[in-house]
Amino acid sequence: MNKYIGVDLGGTNVRVAVIDEDGKIHEQVKSESYALEGPEVVLDNIISMIKNLKQFDECVGIGLGLPGPVNTELGCVTLSTNMKGFTEYPVIDYLKKHIDLPIYMDNDANVAGLAEALVGAGKGNNVVYYLTHSTGIGGALVFNGQVLSGHKGYAGEVGNIVIDRERVRRSDINTLNAGAVENEASGSALVRKAQELIDPKIQSAEEIFTLMEQGNEQAIQLIDEMSYDFAMMLSSIAHVCNPHVFVIGGGVTKSKNLYWDRMIGYYQDLVHEQMRDTQFVEAKLDEPGVIGAAMLCYSKEGHR
Amino acid sequence: MNKYIGVDLGGTNVRVAVIDEDGKIHEQVKSESYALEGPEVVLDNIISMIKNLKQFDECVGIGLGLPGPVNTELGCVTLSTNMKGFTEYPVIDYLKKHIDLPIYMDNDANVAGLAEALVGAGKGNNVVYYLTHSTGIGGALVFNGQVLSGHKGYAGEVGNIVIDRERVRRSDINTLNAGAVENEASGSALVRKAQELIDPKIQSAEEIFTLMEQGNEQAIQLIDEMSYDFAMMLSSIAHVCNPHVFVIGGGVTKSKNLYWDRMIGYYQDLVHEQMRDTQFVEAKLDEPGVIGAAMLCYSKEGHR
Repeated sequence: MNKYIGVDLGGTNVRVAVIDEDGKIHEQVKSESYALEGPEVVLDNIISMIKNLKQFDECVGIGLGLPGPVNTELGCVTLSTNMKGFTEYPVIDYLKKHIDLPIYMDNDANVAGLAEALVGAGKGNNVVYYLTHSTGIGGALVFNGQVLSGHKGYAGEVGNIVIDRERVRRSDINTLNAGAVENEASGSALVRKAQELIDPKIQSAEEIFTLMEQGNEQAIQLIDEMSYDFAMMLSSIAHVCNPHVFVIGGGVTKSKNLYWDRMIGYYQDLVHEQMRDTQFVEAKLDEPGVIGAAMLCYSKEGHR
Repeated sequence: MNKYIGVDLGGTNVRVAVIDEDGKIHEQVKSESYALEGPEVVLDNIISMIKNLKQFDECVGIGLGLPGPVNTELGCVTLSTNMKGFTEYPVIDYLKKHIDLPIYMDNDANVAGLAEALVGAGKGNNVVYYLTHSTGIGGALVFNGQVLSGHKGYAGEVGNIVIDRERVRRSDINTLNAGAVENEASGSALVRKAQELIDPKIQSAEEIFTLMEQGNEQAIQLIDEMSYDFAMMLSSIAHVCNPHVFVIGGGVTKSKNLYWDRMIGYYQDLVHEQMRDTQFVEAKLDEPGVIGAAMLCYSKEGHR
């Protein structure tokens, strides 16, 4: 069974691991990412971590996941917000100068979705749609064992899908559309609305779910609206790709027992009758980032 | 270069052709489809047409496009509305009993999209989104040279995407969602609205475009609204799959010079800045159905 090197690069830390085709981690190292010191410092550190892996010689390729939409054809980030100097920096070209292995990169949500599709909660399904329901909302489409990145890496930027065009544009927060689902149904949107409607001291989605359990009418209403708004996005996604399964992870999902039934019911009302049996499962991998990065290389090279 | 047999089965006619990997038609025959006489009559006729092809022995596989969402795993139509007895009838199994070649089938819009992606207006792009803007609205997603059908074949049923949840549900017409784009921005929706707003005698989208050219304010407004509503759907699709190109065909597209600039402008307002250069091109194949059916087999078998 082939082994691949997965690199999970974030704004704070970077992890490098040796992973097999089943997603099993055989070796793993972690370091500060030096995200504010520019791409060459960041990448030199990663190159050194990779070459120092005990099992480096056993690996047949490298996959890298990092924040921001990735132009997979050019091997760069289209627009980086938390990694200084990474916008359009030729990451793959730089790495290839130092390491003679096939190297692929993609956005962190895309690689996490790939991991869940290939060795996680979505395993065995031809079309998997992965979503994070957290501070923000993001997604990834995996078809035939390949993650779809799109033209500039903006596939999966579903947080900008309009679920109600009559909502107020939140230009105080971000540049998303008026009625973008991320500004209406994310964890942070829920907190913002609860602060306005219930109590300005509310700090987390979890508190609102607790209020809901205690019978707070406003919390019940907010979570009902969130469930409907999220379902509206699910319906749009489903009419594009009719996934066998939605795999959903992220902080809000921790309270899934309190809103999924309702959300799935709304979804079923918003799709064709024959689509109502779409499965919904919770993401299950503890480390989808580093596993998915390795899977990225496996998905491109493994079948050759 | 391999040759494949394409079968384009419709409610009225069926066409069978021998097509090469470039989409070139080498031989073609046409017949009544006998759609109301049940699947065995329909399929026996097709089998006979295939076996009588002069170049039958040169062909390495068969692809079939037909109306309705197709369960590609089971080889049947999930729900057939204009082909009697086809709902869940095992089409592929039946054909395989009589012909010893690889056989694949998919929905007619999906195979048309595949044809445009592989040998038509979308050729050379990794992610192609194909749309028909006609009496109805339908689509197809082609990624890595493969068309995505989804769990029950409902991928591409984008006519049911909600572009404005405040619209009235049109349960007098169909079972689509309230605010479904097909009921708001299709050719038939445009005619329906023009009949209400301008003149009950209006029969075609073309007439409304003519009124627009003559400066009719209500026609101008209707086409502006249609362009915005269609763009809202394009934006939802783009956030799921960020296509390199949208390929759009269908009757309404004949008047593209009168609404595409406006529609594309709205699209650009509804997506992330870096997605604004998505290409929009008109579908260009005269016979995408039969070519796409053959391409379906090529896309599955051609790379083995």
